Amino acid sequence: MSTEEKKGKVSWFIFPAVAVIVFILGLLASSIMERRVESRMIYMPKEKMDQFEPRNEKWGKQYPNQYDTFMKTAETSFKSKHNISSRDDMLEKNPNLVILWAGYGFSKDYNAPRGHSYAIKDIRETLRTGAPKSEKDGPMPATCWACKSTDVSRYMNEKGITEFYQGKWAEKGHEVINPIGCNDCHDGDTMALRISRPALLEGFESMGLDLSKATHQDKRTLVCAQCHVEYYFKDQYLVFPWSKGTKAENMEEYFDEVEFADWVHPLSKAKMIKAQHPGYELWKEGIHAQRGVSCADCHMPYVSKGGVKFTDHQINSPLAKINRSCQNCHRQSEAELIRSVASNQDKVYQLKMSAEKILVKAHLEAKAAWDAGATEAEMAPVLDYIRHAQWRWDYATASHGAAFHAPQEVLRILGTSIEKGSEARRLLTGVLVSKGIKEVDYPDVSTKEKAQKYLGMDIEAMKKAKKEFLETLVPEWEKKAKEREATYGDKKPMTKK
Amino acid sequence: MSTEEKKGKVSWFIFPAVAVIVFILGLLASSIMERRVESRMIYMPKEKMDQFEPRNEKWGKQYPNQYDTFMKTAETSFKSKHNISSRDDMLEKNPNLVILWAGYGFSKDYNAPRGHSYAIKDIRETLRTGAPKSEKDGPMPATCWACKSTDVSRYMNEKGITEFYQGKWAEKGHEVINPIGCNDCHDGDTMALRISRPALLEGFESMGLDLSKATHQDKRTLVCAQCHVEYYFKDQYLVFPWSKGTKAENMEEYFDEVEFADWVHPLSKAKMIKAQHPGYELWKEGIHAQRGVSCADCHMPYVSKGGVKFTDHQINSPLAKINRSCQNCHRQSEAELIRSVASNQDKVYQLKMSAEKILVKAHLEAKAAWDAGATEAEMAPVLDYIRHAQWRWDYATASHGAAFHAPQEVLRILGTSIEKGSEARRLLTGVLVSKGIKEVDYPDVSTKEKAQKYLGMDIEAMKKAKKEFLETLVPEWEKKAKEREATYGDKKPMTKK
Repeated sequence: MSTEEKKGKVSWFIFPAVAVIVFILGLLASSIMERRVESRMIYMPKEKMDQFEPRNEKWGKQYPNQYDTFMKTAETSFKSKHNISSRDDMLEKNPNLVILWAGYGFSKDYNAPRGHSYAIKDIRETLRTGAPKSEKDGPMPATCWACKSTDVSRYMNEKGITEFYQGKWAEKGHEVINPIGCNDCHDGDTMALRISRPALLEGFESMGLDLSKATHQDKRTLVCAQCHVEYYFKDQYLVFPWSKGTKAENMEEYFDEVEFADWVHPLSKAKMIKAQHPGYELWKEGIHAQRGVSCADCHMPYVSKGGVKFTDHQINSPLAKINRSCQNCHRQSEAELIRSVASNQDKVYQLKMSAEKILVKAHLEAKAAWDAGATEAEMAPVLDYIRHAQWRWDYATASHGAAFHAPQEVLRILGTSIEKGSEARRLLTGVLVSKGIKEVDYPDVSTKEKAQKYLGMDIEAMKKAKKEFLETLVPEWEKKAKEREATYGDKKPMTKK
Repeated sequence: MSTEEKKGKVSWFIFPAVAVIVFILGLLASSIMERRVESRMIYMPKEKMDQFEPRNEKWGKQYPNQYDTFMKTAETSFKSKHNISSRDDMLEKNPNLVILWAGYGFSKDYNAPRGHSYAIKDIRETLRTGAPKSEKDGPMPATCWACKSTDVSRYMNEKGITEFYQGKWAEKGHEVINPIGCNDCHDGDTMALRISRPALLEGFESMGLDLSKATHQDKRTLVCAQCHVEYYFKDQYLVFPWSKGTKAENMEEYFDEVEFADWVHPLSKAKMIKAQHPGYELWKEGIHAQRGVSCADCHMPYVSKGGVKFTDHQINSPLAKINRSCQNCHRQSEAELIRSVASNQDKVYQLKMSAEKILVKAHLEAKAAWDAGATEAEMAPVLDYIRHAQWRWDYATASHGAAFHAPQEVLRILGTSIEKGSEARRLLTGVLVSKGIKEVDYPDVSTKEKAQKYLGMDIEAMKKAKKEFLETLVPEWEKKAKEREATYGDKKPMTKK
């Protein structure tokens, strides 16, 4: 065979081989293009969103991955190591709480938390919000809606901030319909994170800090801090009591100075402060905050799907997704990481229970002292200790994940709660013994039912009234809201003010 | 120029170039050889050491780098963030301690710790060991020497373990001369780490654990755990009270069960337990232990010198050498790491001071109750609470670096100390008020001098006696010891039993 002939033969092999390679390259290019289209679909929406659009499903059409994962906040399968599931009846699990919160809404009904998508359902259903029969009825102010819905910034934009906080809770029932969602944290134009709640901006202002300089990473915490914080109502206006700082002692001093009380305890007559859920404040005191780890880093780690990486909007316990949250930084096994977290939780639980038991006895003994004829002067220091001890206990344990976020700070605060609660009891012992009472006859408050009965609470009546409310007023709210939303069509619900 | 000529010219350039390169390579090889010799000098001693050779300087001849750094344990320049230096008078800095330890040696004299090389000097000089005039004199048993010297295992090998623990402290004064050093942790044959103290082996045995399976990394902690632990004297025999576990509650239960008391408090009459320095036990509860970090990893990080890397034997605070200790794993700046540690120390300090103040008052109020005619039955529960509260406070704070090693555990224990101490005070208030005492007339114990005077302690007399002891008996010990050591020559002091 001549060289020419050989070359000819080789060409016959090369031609189909090249054809196959080119075909495969084509497939690859096509796949890359497809992924690009997919990611453009994700990151470049067909049209910009109005930032006051309250309907999450509208945003979901443009951002299906984020929306789909957000919808998973409805899942309630995760169980903590301490065997607490979403919606567990915490008063039943821990009847101390009924006595500690006697005279306040939380003694009626307090469940373990569940996902953002239940925000509206749960606030309507809890006994705490009562059973209003009209707009002017019920125990709670409109302010209670402030953290529950994407309708909040829509309404505030339309009618004003102070206007939103005005009136009874029932007055805004037809306005606040959509659960927490997209517009609470995102700018409709750019999808950038945005602070939608004035209370956070005002809280930072009160500390002399300017949020306009916040970085994107800062905002991955700050959007959560719009709600997961300590707050109180100053004539119904929502205020974060931060002007003296965000530690337990700072806020205690603030509340003492403005002489604020959430309620007066019916047993001890102490002027109480209810800590809400100072999650942001406690996170600040912990090592993750101090190392620059944001809320979203652990609660919303990225997921990969097809050609895109996006933030998991199923905001839940990082322990439910350790491989994507903790293990981004920590090389330990899942079992070891859980053991480590649980070890801190166990320690906090121990001091928490000690503080609670002391406080329950303090309230009961204070009642016994009043009954025995104790004077205001005798009781004044006792009531101060009870107020401060319970505030600290509540601050240390009310927020989600406190034992994880800042175990040392939580243990420190609980130590001071035990100290102050014990001092109240010591003074009470003096008062009681001086009145001839050596042994207090404690009532049996060892179950939720017994404790509520002791306090004279008629839970069955409350449940009945609540049922009526849910069957009558709520459907009216829903109807009115649907009529309003129908006027939006697919267009923007309103223009930016 | 012909090609041949050109080649000739090139050769003239190449020849000197090659010569220079070869010369440099030669230097390099020589340097490498030198380093090798250096490292052989370090790691392969001229002769094996007898593991009972107590004189550190003999070992130092073979291991100059380790010895030189060990000699630096004499340095006392490091100051903690809380402004405590080696040898600071802790009773002066914190007069609470005088009351808490009233009736016990530590109320006489208690200084901040300093390096291993001061072990003999400091135990002779402290007022706690008294001023014996003869072998049969003084407040302390021979057991007190057990952690102070390389002569301990020498003596134990020669005469027996029980024999070592027998007699008065003064009886062994001439036997125990060399400060803590090489043979305490090293096997003379192999330089491997070895456990020289029977108490540690017995302590592990009591927990059903076998130290023969300990790894080298385990031993980098265990050699320290020979001394930096909680212990007590069971008829002068040194025992680690670990059979129920090493947590504060475990050992408390142990001591209660064997009805052990270190002393009876002269004010409250409570049967007290003195926590020594449960450093190992607390380290076990912390994150560094749980991640496999040994004592030596942080307190004895490696250093490079010449051709060798060796373990820094200047055993001191890792905060004095953050770049070589913490920063092996942690990427944060030195300032940030210190801030982080100090933040835990501050929290622990707060609860520690609370627990102390409660306990000081409890002792004083208990005395007032006894003085007012309180009965044994009335006081029994009070004294139990005081015993347990003070044990926990002491356990949590007595060991070096507790707030670093296990801040959560320390805060937890202090929380329980506050709880129990407060409960003692509450019961005391009941007893006192029932006897007509509404206000206790507390003595002024706000300084070391005032507190010691209140307790009737004549510190000047103690100091005078101590001076005499140091000027008379100690020189005799030194003389006897020198005579004994002179018989060793440069040979092994004795053969292995």
